[in-house]
Amino acid sequence: MMKQTLEQLETPALILDEARMERNIARMREQIRRLGVIFRPHVKTNKCMEVTRRLMETPGGPITVSTLREADYFAAHGVTDILYAVCIAPNKLDHVMALQGKGVQLSLILDSMETARILTERAKTTGRRFDVLIEVDSDGHRSGLAPDAVELVEIGRFLEDAGMTVKGVMTHAGSSYDCTSVAAIRAMAEQERAAIVHAAERLRAAGMACPVVSVGSTPTALFAEQLEGVTEVRAGVFVFFDLVMAGLKVCREEDIVLSVLSTVIGHQREKGWTILDAGWMAMSRDRGTQRQPVDQGYGLVCDLDGRPMDDLILVGANQEHGIMAHRDGRVEGALHLPVGTQVRILPNHACPTAAQYPSYQVLGTDHEITATWQRFSGW
Amino acid sequence: MMKQTLEQLETPALILDEARMERNIARMREQIRRLGVIFRPHVKTNKCMEVTRRLMETPGGPITVSTLREADYFAAHGVTDILYAVCIAPNKLDHVMALQGKGVQLSLILDSMETARILTERAKTTGRRFDVLIEVDSDGHRSGLAPDAVELVEIGRFLEDAGMTVKGVMTHAGSSYDCTSVAAIRAMAEQERAAIVHAAERLRAAGMACPVVSVGSTPTALFAEQLEGVTEVRAGVFVFFDLVMAGLKVCREEDIVLSVLSTVIGHQREKGWTILDAGWMAMSRDRGTQRQPVDQGYGLVCDLDGRPMDDLILVGANQEHGIMAHRDGRVEGALHLPVGTQVRILPNHACPTAAQYPSYQVLGTDHEITATWQRFSGW
Repeated sequence: MMKQTLEQLETPALILDEARMERNIARMREQIRRLGVIFRPHVKTNKCMEVTRRLMETPGGPITVSTLREADYFAAHGVTDILYAVCIAPNKLDHVMALQGKGVQLSLILDSMETARILTERAKTTGRRFDVLIEVDSDGHRSGLAPDAVELVEIGRFLEDAGMTVKGVMTHAGSSYDCTSVAAIRAMAEQERAAIVHAAERLRAAGMACPVVSVGSTPTALFAEQLEGVTEVRAGVFVFFDLVMAGLKVCREEDIVLSVLSTVIGHQREKGWTILDAGWMAMSRDRGTQRQPVDQGYGLVCDLDGRPMDDLILVGANQEHGIMAHRDGRVEGALHLPVGTQVRILPNHACPTAAQYPSYQVLGTDHEITATWQRFSGW
Repeated sequence: MMKQTLEQLETPALILDEARMERNIARMREQIRRLGVIFRPHVKTNKCMEVTRRLMETPGGPITVSTLREADYFAAHGVTDILYAVCIAPNKLDHVMALQGKGVQLSLILDSMETARILTERAKTTGRRFDVLIEVDSDGHRSGLAPDAVELVEIGRFLEDAGMTVKGVMTHAGSSYDCTSVAAIRAMAEQERAAIVHAAERLRAAGMACPVVSVGSTPTALFAEQLEGVTEVRAGVFVFFDLVMAGLKVCREEDIVLSVLSTVIGHQREKGWTILDAGWMAMSRDRGTQRQPVDQGYGLVCDLDGRPMDDLILVGANQEHGIMAHRDGRVEGALHLPVGTQVRILPNHACPTAAQYPSYQVLGTDHEITATWQRFSGW
C-alpha cells in the first residue's frame, strides 16, 4: 500500500496517534511495576490485536474481555489466559465450552447462587469444569456481592463441593468515573482494594485458597497508592484515554490517542455554525462530559496536528452531520474554515467511538498514516 | 441452516419482527399513494438489501443514502438511482466518480457557493458532470439555504452556467422529531412543503427547470395532509419505528420492529435491580426519549412475545451491562426474573441501535427465527 497522509483520507475516519498511545502504555506499565501486581489489560476498548499485543505481558496473555467475541478473536491470535468479566449467562455456556475445547483457559464470573447452580448442573451433564471468580461489589454501581455478604462464602463452598475451581474474587470500581478529584479517585482505589481483600480473606477463612484477587478501572489503577493483598489489575481505556478521562484529570487532552478526522461541508454563518461530515454515527451518542464541569458536547475540535482550536466543540450532531461552534456561542468573529478543511475531533469516550469503525488509521509523524489496524465490534 | 428460536440465540442479539415491518411499510405506501408523490426511501436506518428491497418502487431505486458506503453497497445490489443526502465534501469526489463509472446516477447536494465552485473546478479538470440538488433549510435545525436566500438563485445560475445539471431542491424537516403533538407535526409538514416549493419557484422564475422538489422525515411524511408542488418524499426510520417515534405518537409501541434480545445475569435485590447482558453497546448510547414526556431510559423491556412487562425499563447501562428496574423505582414487590430469563428491549432510536449489529435475526411466528439478514456499518 502506498503511504497516505491525513489529507488524503476520505472522511470520517478514526485516527490513532501511535506516539501518544506508547506514552500511555509506558505510564501504566510503570504504575503496575510500582504496585507489584500482574497486569491483565481489558481489551474491550481497543478490540484489536495490534494494540493488545503492546499491552500484554506475554503473547498468551493474560487479558480481560467483555464479550465472547473478543475471547474468540484473541484466542485465534494465540491468547490463552482470558477472564470474561461479565456474569455468565446460561446461553453462553456452549460458546464457553467451545473456547475451552480450543485450549483457552477462560475464567468466568458470577455473583449469585442461581448462576452457581446453573454452572454446576451444566458441568455435571457435560463433564466439563469451569474456572470461576466471584464478583464483589466495591462501590454499589452495578453487579457483585457485598464483601461481607453471607452468600459469598456459601457460593464459594457450593462451587468447590461441586468440583469447580474457585479461582478468586474480582471487582470493578466503576464509580471512579464519577469522581470529581484525584483525591476522590485515590480514596476510591483504596475502597476497591479494601473491599476485595476483605472478600478474599473471608473465603480463605472458610478454607478456600482464593489465589486471584483482581481489581481495576483506569482511574483507580493509575492513582492507587498501594494494592496490598491484590494480585492483579485490569484496565482498558487508559490506552487511548478520552475527554471524560481528561475531565477527571486522569490524563491531559494531549494524551488522547483517538480522534475522528472530519471535513467542513457547509456553514450557517448567522448562527456561528460550521457543518462537518462527522455526526453522532462517527462520534457515538456518548455525552459523558455532560455531567462534568466542562461539557465538551459531542467532541473537542482540533487542527490536523491534534491541537485544540479556539475552543471549538461539536455543539450538536445528527446522524452524519456535526454542528461545530465556539463554546461561548459567539457569532461575531466566529472562525470561518472553508469547505473542505479537515479537523480532528477528540471523543468523549473512546470505547463507543472506536466501536463505530472497522479499523484504526495509525498516525505517525508529519500527518503520515503508517498503518491500518483492523478492529471488530459486536458479539 | 436449522431453524432456531429466540430461546436458542446467544445474547445480545438484534431481533426484527417481520410482520410489524410489513405493516409499517404498507402504512407508508398508502400515505405516499394518497399524496401522489414518488417515494425515495432513506436506507440509512436499515443498511440492508433485504429490507430496502421491500421499500423500493423498482429494483433500481430510487433511494436516499447518508454515506457513500451505503451507495457502494446498494449499487452492488443493482440500485442505480441514488441521492446522497449530505452536502458533498471535496475528499469524496473520487469516490463519487468511481460510483458514476459503475453506472450509478448519483445525485449530490450542496448549500454554498464554496462547494459549487469546488464541484465545477473538479468537473472541469476531470471532464465529469455532477447532478446536483440545492439543500434548503426549512426549519433551522441544520444545513441548507433559507428558501428566500439570494445565494439560492446565484448558485443555481453558477452551476448551470458551468454545465452542471441542477436537478432541483431538497429539504429535511428534522425538527419534526422535537414536535410535541400530531398537530405540530402536521404544521411542520406544511412548513417543510411551503419552504421547498418557494425555493423551487424562485429557481424556475430565474429560468431553471428544477424538476425535483424533495422533502422528507418520517413524522412529516406520515402526517402531511397534502404535498402540492412536491415531487418526492424521503423517509427511513418508519420501517422500524422506535420509542422516540412512539413518544411523538407517530406510531404505537406495538409497531416497533427492532428489539434487543437479552438475558438476566444477576440481581441487586435490595435496590430492585435486575442485571442484563445488554448495556449501551447493545442498545447504543442514544437517550432520545430523555427530553420527551416519558423517559424510557436505555429502552423499554418486553417479554419474548414483544409485550411491555410491568413498566420495566433500563434505568442505567454500562458497556455490556444493563440495569433493569421498574419505572417507579419500587424495590418492595419488584419482579424477580431468574438468571437465564430472556427479555426483548425496545430501543430509543432504531438507527444507532441497529448500527451496533452485523445482522438482523428475523422473527416469524412462535418465536421462530426465519432468516438472518446481513447489514453493515461504517463509511
